[in-house]
Amino acid sequence: MRKKEKESIEKLDKITAIALKRGFFWPTAEIYGGKAGLLSYGHLGKAIKNKFENLWRDYFIKNYENCYEIEASTILPEEVFMASGHIEHFNDPLIECKTCHFRFRADQFIENNLKVNVEELTLEEMSELARKNKLKCPKCGSWHLGEAKWFNMMFPIQLGAVGIKDMAYLPPETAQASYLAFKREFEATRKKLPLGIAIIGKAFRNEISPRQLITRMKEFHQAELQVFFDPDEINKINKEKWKQISKYKLIMLPQKEKKIKEITCDEANKKLKLPKFYIKHLALVQKFYLEKLKIPKNEFRLRELSEKEKAFYNKIHWDIELNLETFGEFREIGGIHYRTDHDLSGHEKYSKENLHIFYNNKKFIPHVLEISLGIDRDIWALMDIFFKEEKERALFSFPLAISPIDMAIFPLVSKEGLPEKAKEIYNMLKKKFSCFYDETGAIGRRYRRQDEIGTPYCITIDNQTMKDDTVTIRERDSMKQKRVKKAVLLIEFKNLI
Amino acid sequence: MRKKEKESIEKLDKITAIALKRGFFWPTAEIYGGKAGLLSYGHLGKAIKNKFENLWRDYFIKNYENCYEIEASTILPEEVFMASGHIEHFNDPLIECKTCHFRFRADQFIENNLKVNVEELTLEEMSELARKNKLKCPKCGSWHLGEAKWFNMMFPIQLGAVGIKDMAYLPPETAQASYLAFKREFEATRKKLPLGIAIIGKAFRNEISPRQLITRMKEFHQAELQVFFDPDEINKINKEKWKQISKYKLIMLPQKEKKIKEITCDEANKKLKLPKFYIKHLALVQKFYLEKLKIPKNEFRLRELSEKEKAFYNKIHWDIELNLETFGEFREIGGIHYRTDHDLSGHEKYSKENLHIFYNNKKFIPHVLEISLGIDRDIWALMDIFFKEEKERALFSFPLAISPIDMAIFPLVSKEGLPEKAKEIYNMLKKKFSCFYDETGAIGRRYRRQDEIGTPYCITIDNQTMKDDTVTIRERDSMKQKRVKKAVLLIEFKNLI
Repeated sequence: MRKKEKESIEKLDKITAIALKRGFFWPTAEIYGGKAGLLSYGHLGKAIKNKFENLWRDYFIKNYENCYEIEASTILPEEVFMASGHIEHFNDPLIECKTCHFRFRADQFIENNLKVNVEELTLEEMSELARKNKLKCPKCGSWHLGEAKWFNMMFPIQLGAVGIKDMAYLPPETAQASYLAFKREFEATRKKLPLGIAIIGKAFRNEISPRQLITRMKEFHQAELQVFFDPDEINKINKEKWKQISKYKLIMLPQKEKKIKEITCDEANKKLKLPKFYIKHLALVQKFYLEKLKIPKNEFRLRELSEKEKAFYNKIHWDIELNLETFGEFREIGGIHYRTDHDLSGHEKYSKENLHIFYNNKKFIPHVLEISLGIDRDIWALMDIFFKEEKERALFSFPLAISPIDMAIFPLVSKEGLPEKAKEIYNMLKKKFSCFYDETGAIGRRYRRQDEIGTPYCITIDNQTMKDDTVTIRERDSMKQKRVKKAVLLIEFKNLI
Repeated sequence: MRKKEKESIEKLDKITAIALKRGFFWPTAEIYGGKAGLLSYGHLGKAIKNKFENLWRDYFIKNYENCYEIEASTILPEEVFMASGHIEHFNDPLIECKTCHFRFRADQFIENNLKVNVEELTLEEMSELARKNKLKCPKCGSWHLGEAKWFNMMFPIQLGAVGIKDMAYLPPETAQASYLAFKREFEATRKKLPLGIAIIGKAFRNEISPRQLITRMKEFHQAELQVFFDPDEINKINKEKWKQISKYKLIMLPQKEKKIKEITCDEANKKLKLPKFYIKHLALVQKFYLEKLKIPKNEFRLRELSEKEKAFYNKIHWDIELNLETFGEFREIGGIHYRTDHDLSGHEKYSKENLHIFYNNKKFIPHVLEISLGIDRDIWALMDIFFKEEKERALFSFPLAISPIDMAIFPLVSKEGLPEKAKEIYNMLKKKFSCFYDETGAIGRRYRRQDEIGTPYCITIDNQTMKDDTVTIRERDSMKQKRVKKAVLLIEFKNLI
């Protein structure tokens, strides 16, 4: 365990060093010392993020019938979170030191000091544990600690001039904006169910002790899809479509089991009693990770949450987890949530606006199935899983679909007309692909620099190019080179990509 | 003038009605009555926004050498805005009623009541005008008004637990994050100038009386490009490149002139004394509007701001303005700002971090030229400029580059196998284009529905399709139809697009 922990930290440090130096990400306002829980993406991180988001759009929106992307203002008025329950329920446990008045996260405090699993403890149990074990204030060392209390994790925003009460919040999830838009979108998109409303956006949580890098931030990015459907059809699914997935094996860790099992969709329906409509989306998500992001099968699992772990609005809740060496364990990257009519009913009640629809010859409030992915967590997971160290190099073996740069173009030397030729090829390729041009330094070092950021292909222009218009393509993982005609480059890459 | 004003309002109402009904945009949290200054995009508005952003990326980033996109956290710590001057300078004038304590914008108050141009008035002058003219509180009608005072327009954010002072702000412009990233990006991208750092992001301003729809919001979207360059080279520009634009005519309204003139880049340099590097970017922006967004030439102008109008950080400041019928006048959509070393020097001073670089054999702080576009304003402008009313229909004659949907696919009737055939074609086309499928209602009404949201092409599958695999393509603006082989559809559209 000790050795594994050390390896985790070493790997984390190595990836972070590359991230800082090469432009993947860094702490926000780093020149002012940075801020815990706030990160910014450099050009390479942003390039991955753009690719990830477009891949998500293509897969979850374009491929899903009757699914649409919207974008809401970040700031939402207080009423929204009264209705959603976030003002009442979205809280972290805090302890205040009675001596120095320092406040800190009760759960992390107990966990760090006593090495116990705090996920299921109540406020009283946490206070009791702190008292019994005579835990001391992490700042001043006093034993005189207050009771653990709830602290709301949303950031309040005061709209309007000072003195006029007009409260709003930064949202802790993008989902609420989809619920607010439901009625308008249902009307505008010809009144069909299931209806998918997707948002890629920012969410904000005032984590008291943000830590764990990109996996627990004060400001983070979500890609969330809300599917509105008729609850009477939760177990009805087109027979042909069910047949296509019924034998597909889901990689699952149900609450009752102690280990990961491969379970067909059919079994998940019959033995785990999960509704077919829910299972269909588990399969959709798993295929996204295994087939689109190329995550190795044994690094992926769907984990069922316990009653106490579940978000307060979920009836069924399985997390998407990836096995990350940098944390030495499986980590939550997203979740598939059956939120029932919790949100729409809440908004109907609170706004007095009728959110019932008439569909399938009846009047009802649609239920919601949510697929929620953390984009920053995904980016970190991809960096963790695809990072490789070999004898002479470190590399990210990213699949092309998410590598920040598709290809680099190099003149072998920067003379004899090679740079001009290389730029000509660069200008041709950059119309279709994301390209990087570099002419300085030894060719071996230039290859290593591209390996280090995960560029799948390097194209080199040498003296032979000047004679016969051929170039070499070097493939990142195998480091093998082949020589092709310049004229077929575009076709060659179109087939690869 | 009266008639023109009425027409403006009528047009504004018509576009807004379509926007609400069809899913372009609506007030945020509309079911709770909405919030002044906060808007959300429905699926059609979001589709335009995505297209606009990608067009901007292709044009300003991909085409510009050594230019990169980054993304920062929205929340930025207080130090950033101390250094940038926003805490000191970014204020609106407010008046408080001494009787009822209602606070309101002094400039708008004076303008609305006295119909004078307030752009250049000082606080004292505004207070004096209110007093002299015995203006009354817009809420309680009292004459007892306080002096006009400055009110900071940023939204403060309290990071960390209550009681621990850790201030941050939502940014009033995306630009600051690029300055914070400059040193990292300069190092990571091989230390070359000019270096472009681009951000597409959200900005926030606590406008006291937000109004004027999408052109003055509390939360809005910017596409900003910061170009870092050597100030000694502001008038040096590659001769070949200058030759390419020297005769290009800019549409300008200089401060000294009372009317719009076409001025060649050469003249702008010689007569208006604008630096060549700045002019190059004026031309770049104008071409984006005229050639990419297809804005008619007489609806576009570059307007020089007066000393008092200029943002506090700008040495040269021209606005990009479009003529909007819905406002009855030219409106600011963005600006081209020569910010000098204002920001980097401020951050160096405040952070004590050395932001000088060594380049061109000398040590210096780069200067910044900023191209700042308001995305929401652009979207509104596009809707205003391309809205047309004809005898039997209303339409947006959007260019394909920004239409929310590329093409709609219809079976003429929903029987005889036509829907199946149409879906097959829809599934083929949607891999490459953004498509909408619809089979309900009379074909004429379906065409009108697409006209109303600006879809350039409708493809109809009829009985003849079943015989010879041909379909009709209807073009939006001309309403002309032509019949083509299904097999050539993809090629046909690739050429068009």
